[in-house]
Amino acid sequence: MLLEYDGTNFDGWQRQGNTDNTIQGRLEEILSRLLEQPVAVIGSGRTDAGVHAHGQVANWKADTALSPERLQAMLRANLPESIGLRALEEVPLRFHSRLSAREKTYRYRIWTSDAPCVFERRYLWLLRKPLDIAAMRDAASHLLGRHDFRAFCSNRQMKKSTVRELRALSVEQYGDEIRLTATGDGFLYNMVRILAGTLVEVGLGRRAPEEMEAILQSRDRAQAGATAPAKGLLLWEVLY
Amino acid sequence: MLLEYDGTNFDGWQRQGNTDNTIQGRLEEILSRLLEQPVAVIGSGRTDAGVHAHGQVANWKADTALSPERLQAMLRANLPESIGLRALEEVPLRFHSRLSAREKTYRYRIWTSDAPCVFERRYLWLLRKPLDIAAMRDAASHLLGRHDFRAFCSNRQMKKSTVRELRALSVEQYGDEIRLTATGDGFLYNMVRILAGTLVEVGLGRRAPEEMEAILQSRDRAQAGATAPAKGLLLWEVLY
Repeated sequence: MLLEYDGTNFDGWQRQGNTDNTIQGRLEEILSRLLEQPVAVIGSGRTDAGVHAHGQVANWKADTALSPERLQAMLRANLPESIGLRALEEVPLRFHSRLSAREKTYRYRIWTSDAPCVFERRYLWLLRKPLDIAAMRDAASHLLGRHDFRAFCSNRQMKKSTVRELRALSVEQYGDEIRLTATGDGFLYNMVRILAGTLVEVGLGRRAPEEMEAILQSRDRAQAGATAPAKGLLLWEVLY
Repeated sequence: MLLEYDGTNFDGWQRQGNTDNTIQGRLEEILSRLLEQPVAVIGSGRTDAGVHAHGQVANWKADTALSPERLQAMLRANLPESIGLRALEEVPLRFHSRLSAREKTYRYRIWTSDAPCVFERRYLWLLRKPLDIAAMRDAASHLLGRHDFRAFCSNRQMKKSTVRELRALSVEQYGDEIRLTATGDGFLYNMVRILAGTLVEVGLGRRAPEEMEAILQSRDRAQAGATAPAKGLLLWEVLY
């Protein structure tokens, strides 16, 4: 399934206990009901509460004679308006949304002026301060490549490798909006939000672009910037 | 004041009683508090509950030494995120947002496919059916000009003239969205929503474009189509 969703009113992607208000939980509930069998949905990764998706990918397995076209129509008729099924197709049994992913792209949107941003306010960080884009691009260039990104990870007990390859980190301006786009082979917990928060501190002149290398080398979360708000983050695309 | 707002969570423009959750009421409350005097806000027209605005115009009068620039900054700092102040300027005392208006433009947005429309779902009618645009354009051409639009007015007790000049009524397609744009010297209560509802019935093949003239001549609300949902409507612009 290729999914888009507005994370505003959800408790994130990952299924929780009884009072479930998660995207995964909602999908499993609907699929299990429609197919009259327990269905477990595997996403390409969790998104936190308030984080949105344009191109989340998720797979599931069920015993059914229904065609993908029919299943897509049934799902679309049953999903809440805040979850959209962009596409559904049959995949080989070995396909795994998370383990098979080879590249992910996230976007982070920031509103930089005190002009109104009424209709998209749920999807941007309303920072309302001007940012120095050249400095942010300079900082971004120091973060590109294969590094230990432990300083940009909220999970302090992370036991697995925190080495990731950041393949692109662009800073683009669209009127009063600044959009960060991060592409990599994978991202650590809160990594894009901490990258965004750190680049914003550079854009505000509170940090120098050259500090990025010392932050990476420190492997210390306390050296990086604040975690940017969830609502500005959008899982854009997952490649396989 | 040039204002934009998301009408989703408001009970419309017009101030109500004690439990006020209207745009006018909110503006008056904030202005009266900031200026320490009672301030009455006059809009170019009411918008119903759920209707949005990109370019609502409103004026008010107060005794203050604060500059327009300062007032704009103070208001922006105090408005909820769902109301945006695009601009504020001083006007001659004779200016009246409603009485001085000489032309208004509304937009009505319709989503015509079963593809997801997650991020803009609050701002479109999610009809999810294909529409015959050529037929809708044909019907629109019969409505243009100066007519008695009583059949397109929800207020059955309307005592004033129901003659209006509809100067433009365009039907444009943007991917899965169809956007109606109506410009006129003024609009009756619910007129754009009834125009939209009637054009959609034409687009669905349930009415012929030529019926428009008989509907106008009937001056009977029951002859026109259903009132389209509030959330698809956007007050676009008011000219003076």
